[in-house]
Amino acid sequence: MPRRGPVDVTALVSAAREGTPRAVARLITLVENADPALRAVMQALAPHTGRARVIGLTGSPGVGKSTTTSALVAAYRERGARVGVLAVDPTSPFSGGALLGDRIRLSEHALDPEVYVRSMASRGHLGGLSWATPQALRVLDGAGCDVVLLETVGVGQSEVEVAGLADTTVVLLAPGMGDGVQAAKAGILEVGDVFVVNKADRDGADVTVRDLRGMISLGDRSEPGLWRPPVLKTVAERAEGVTDVIESLDKHLAWLEEHGELRARRTRRAAREVEAIAVRTLRERMGDVRAGHGLDDLAAEVVDGRTDPYTAADRLVASL
Amino acid sequence: MPRRGPVDVTALVSAAREGTPRAVARLITLVENADPALRAVMQALAPHTGRARVIGLTGSPGVGKSTTTSALVAAYRERGARVGVLAVDPTSPFSGGALLGDRIRLSEHALDPEVYVRSMASRGHLGGLSWATPQALRVLDGAGCDVVLLETVGVGQSEVEVAGLADTTVVLLAPGMGDGVQAAKAGILEVGDVFVVNKADRDGADVTVRDLRGMISLGDRSEPGLWRPPVLKTVAERAEGVTDVIESLDKHLAWLEEHGELRARRTRRAAREVEAIAVRTLRERMGDVRAGHGLDDLAAEVVDGRTDPYTAADRLVASL
Repeated sequence: MPRRGPVDVTALVSAAREGTPRAVARLITLVENADPALRAVMQALAPHTGRARVIGLTGSPGVGKSTTTSALVAAYRERGARVGVLAVDPTSPFSGGALLGDRIRLSEHALDPEVYVRSMASRGHLGGLSWATPQALRVLDGAGCDVVLLETVGVGQSEVEVAGLADTTVVLLAPGMGDGVQAAKAGILEVGDVFVVNKADRDGADVTVRDLRGMISLGDRSEPGLWRPPVLKTVAERAEGVTDVIESLDKHLAWLEEHGELRARRTRRAAREVEAIAVRTLRERMGDVRAGHGLDDLAAEVVDGRTDPYTAADRLVASL
Repeated sequence: MPRRGPVDVTALVSAAREGTPRAVARLITLVENADPALRAVMQALAPHTGRARVIGLTGSPGVGKSTTTSALVAAYRERGARVGVLAVDPTSPFSGGALLGDRIRLSEHALDPEVYVRSMASRGHLGGLSWATPQALRVLDGAGCDVVLLETVGVGQSEVEVAGLADTTVVLLAPGMGDGVQAAKAGILEVGDVFVVNKADRDGADVTVRDLRGMISLGDRSEPGLWRPPVLKTVAERAEGVTDVIESLDKHLAWLEEHGELRARRTRRAAREVEAIAVRTLRERMGDVRAGHGLDDLAAEVVDGRTDPYTAADRLVASL
């Protein structure tokens, strides 16, 4: 994208709040580029945030995440909600992700001015998702979205990160698909608020549902007073079962509010966001040290065994 | 593991340097637990490090990583080298990894006192691999290993991280296995110094070799003077082709030394290690702020829209 002139933050934020899709897109680009104007953007947006509910959607490749997202967007649009979709690809360190090629399926909403769809590749190898995603969510929230669907491929630790950002996390599975991998990632049991077995018209759907219910009832989740994650079946392609999913999402939101958990989750999310920005600030200062060859000199001493990495790190921190 | 008394660092480091496997294991446990004694350990080890060559091994699940590792261990043992194996599982945020269950295959070396094998789950969701792995490598290096094989499942960005830690990175593939995923992860082309198509007795091995060579010749790698990664075939289970791999690894090491790249890579690795320790130190200070409710208060202000995350982060940094 060509570099444009200095950002007129006030005008841009106003336009985004009035619902101009291009203004929203521009703000998210500022987030992606870690633009210095972000600070002013976030200041201007702050009073208007905290309204959107964030629904995380995760699952292995092939379970039908984008089809499900699309069906949920349609359902929320029927209610008259303004909907944001943020698709984050944690698998593409080098460039925008091939795995998001199926974003095209959301094109049925492409002409709806009340739906914002955005894909982001998670940049760099440290803190990419944790730094940029909450700020992109904040833009969609400030732009008046009632619901933001945060979709990510369940690889590595991305489910856990998504769960940390969402009010409610939906874990998608499909019958008979990569059961080995699914089972290996027992972590999904701990992060899901709602489980959905998509492609439920396929063989083995009931087995997958039963297995999941079994695993959930074995976990901590069965304690009284705790939210007991439902396991639902959908055929997202034909919008079958989507109403039940929406209903479960509403129930979970009500449960969160009732138990003071909504504010607790959002406070934890904000704490992590603030911490990520602070770490980045400190890293930038270290980068300045690196540019001044300070870090390289320290590293060379470590390579030569003249000092150890802890002593070097102390000197680095002291130089900030 | 039960908490033992205070660590006698001097005795432990001496024992590790004399080749006592239990002492080496204990030191790596200190790394895993981020034990405060690490600082003294690293100080004691510093003069004895920088001798091991680190060979990274990565590939999708099922390509035969541990079989290949085992075959390489056998080959290096024949040369009389002391060998360390560090298997890092980036997919297990919650507990020791199921994907490392196949560690058992390395049991043929279990009784060899000159072979140290260790699995590590990558802890937490930020900086786990980048913080602990270089320090575990440093322990194996300081304990007199001539070669350390660093094995990791190629998921998410782990290949890139492994390549950042190794002198030489071996990317393993298998014929016809998850070609879609393999292709989607074009990043492997950029990190591999040696490519190995394992299970080469299966159909499609030659196609995979040809495709890989094609992709490599299309990349930057074909420029004169640059290292041109070889593409080799193995049947690791029967140790077929392993001699060629060892030969390529030696050639790459010689190339690195000749071009000043070995020191450059190790300096970059040490710089990242120092930076990771520094970031952790700063995070710990933030954790102290959090424990004092400072961060929670800031987060609550952000949730209420009374402040923006940047201003909050400034205040957090200022409080360190």
